[in-house]
Amino acid sequence: MRPLEFKDGVLKLIDQTKLPHQKVYVECTTYIEVAEAIKNMIVRGAPAIGVTAAYGIVIGALSINASSKDEFIHRLEEICNIMRNTRPTAVNLFWAVDRVYKTALSNMDKPLDEVKKFLLNEALMMDSEDVQANKAIGKNGLSLIKDNFTILTHCNAGALATCDYGTALGVIRAAHEGGKKINVYADETRPYLQGARLTAWELSQEGIPLTLICDNMAGHFMKSGIIDCVIVGADRIALNGDTANKIGTYSVAVLAHENNIPFYVAAPVSTIDFSIESGNSIPIEERSSKEVTEIMGIQIAPANIKVANPSFDVTPNKYISAIITEKGIIYPPFIDNLNALKEQNR
Amino acid sequence: MRPLEFKDGVLKLIDQTKLPHQKVYVECTTYIEVAEAIKNMIVRGAPAIGVTAAYGIVIGALSINASSKDEFIHRLEEICNIMRNTRPTAVNLFWAVDRVYKTALSNMDKPLDEVKKFLLNEALMMDSEDVQANKAIGKNGLSLIKDNFTILTHCNAGALATCDYGTALGVIRAAHEGGKKINVYADETRPYLQGARLTAWELSQEGIPLTLICDNMAGHFMKSGIIDCVIVGADRIALNGDTANKIGTYSVAVLAHENNIPFYVAAPVSTIDFSIESGNSIPIEERSSKEVTEIMGIQIAPANIKVANPSFDVTPNKYISAIITEKGIIYPPFIDNLNALKEQNR
Repeated sequence: MRPLEFKDGVLKLIDQTKLPHQKVYVECTTYIEVAEAIKNMIVRGAPAIGVTAAYGIVIGALSINASSKDEFIHRLEEICNIMRNTRPTAVNLFWAVDRVYKTALSNMDKPLDEVKKFLLNEALMMDSEDVQANKAIGKNGLSLIKDNFTILTHCNAGALATCDYGTALGVIRAAHEGGKKINVYADETRPYLQGARLTAWELSQEGIPLTLICDNMAGHFMKSGIIDCVIVGADRIALNGDTANKIGTYSVAVLAHENNIPFYVAAPVSTIDFSIESGNSIPIEERSSKEVTEIMGIQIAPANIKVANPSFDVTPNKYISAIITEKGIIYPPFIDNLNALKEQNR
Repeated sequence: MRPLEFKDGVLKLIDQTKLPHQKVYVECTTYIEVAEAIKNMIVRGAPAIGVTAAYGIVIGALSINASSKDEFIHRLEEICNIMRNTRPTAVNLFWAVDRVYKTALSNMDKPLDEVKKFLLNEALMMDSEDVQANKAIGKNGLSLIKDNFTILTHCNAGALATCDYGTALGVIRAAHEGGKKINVYADETRPYLQGARLTAWELSQEGIPLTLICDNMAGHFMKSGIIDCVIVGADRIALNGDTANKIGTYSVAVLAHENNIPFYVAAPVSTIDFSIESGNSIPIEERSSKEVTEIMGIQIAPANIKVANPSFDVTPNKYISAIITEKGIIYPPFIDNLNALKEQNR
């Protein structure tokens, strides 16, 4: 279940705004269309956004008809900046843009046609690396999931949020594939309903037992003793383990902590922002008030009222039991163990 | 802003399922229609449900054409049972039904026409007592609200949930009327959206500054230091202070506790169930899965998935800073102070 597919210069995306009612594809043939698709959440999820942006830059690069290498790099830089300005919170976006841009820089001794091929190869590599990372996350997370566990998840950190397989849902998939009997409680995840629309759809397709709940019910089921652990994805993890993820994640983490339920973050190393010390430095995207006051075009609140719509929140490290990455499970103290990972990644 | 009005044998209710789009009235001329209106949440909110049921019994009693007092009491009992079976959680319903039924019992020495008048008087008295109680709750709660406070509320414990003025919103109204500058953050309150549809509408009408948020954003704003206190209503309070209220209240209470924010419950004494020791004995209503999978008739999740929809949760007393009643503010230890109130109410 891949949300994105690049072929012959065209990026084909599942329009995630239309799921689960319609499985419609959007074909992007310009980098501007790719940027708009990210902004409008046709594609979403930190790892998927990163690779989508990489393909967007490739599409842009292929269209550059430059008379000099300087002009090429200048135009490429502009394209990269447009990608960077689509969404502020997920670090994978910036990581992916930088990686593609650096690939260009380090190959500028070659003819431009060849540079463009290097960019395409880099994007394709990031795509397949993401799938491999997710499968490794799934495998690494397996030890945390016991038979008959009921797992709560928030938002969609599934195949649809990545290039395939998913991060949080990757662990759930791996447990299911491994023959463990598991149940999933999925928060609907207002305002954009990624849980109700995407996670419920994805798990239904896989035949993984699922109960859909409203976000405000998660605490009740934790207190009732029904939830054995929580697994969520991440949009940006700071060096101390503080984790930005979909709005509501912080609340789930506090409720899990209060009820002595392990709270796991599943994310590839590309989601770790080794450049920031804590979650305080993570910018939180504020999205349109209409996402709150309208649901699928239907007005649900009085017109002209004030609305807040932060798209993410930051969960302080003290509420996180472990971070499941493709390199292994990282436990507290995160400050030490993420710094060690940073050294390995230099 | 009264959600219910009884006149000439007819109970006129604002159809709260249609707000804020339309202000439509439903006229109930039989007790069955009243019971259906409670079940279908045309009227909702613990105090409003209680008084609505009382009027429903009056309508039923007026229609009884009994050949004996025994037959009258038997028929009245049937009507009372139908009212009791509408919704299980709010104790005000049972309190109101019992009070009307006891009024009949203690007047059975009089002619049946006169008994019916006593029932009507009792219902009218309960109606006006509720308004007075809410105004007293508002006045009593004033001392807890400082100037420039930002108050978070969940669900709708407003005029629409009572006979007028509201409980949690009664305190907010009183503060606003008293010239205090306050801001309200209103949780939208999925699945039924009482916050987005009813609280936002009610506060807009009064000109009280309001920010609408999704339920899963409340924790983020508490952590951000924006919320000074939380005030919610209640559907049933046990003798130890454990409080059943709209689903999500427990989560808000835990998050307030974690962020050192006072969490207040505002409710009339009729919401205290002096017969139960703790919240463990409170039945939690499970409502239709369609409330979760459909919003205003629009399907938002895949068809045929499993859904949980508990309509209430129980907040343990340790998370509650104070209970604001018409008799004054009750502080912990609730077990002592509610028992003292029970003695006064004997």
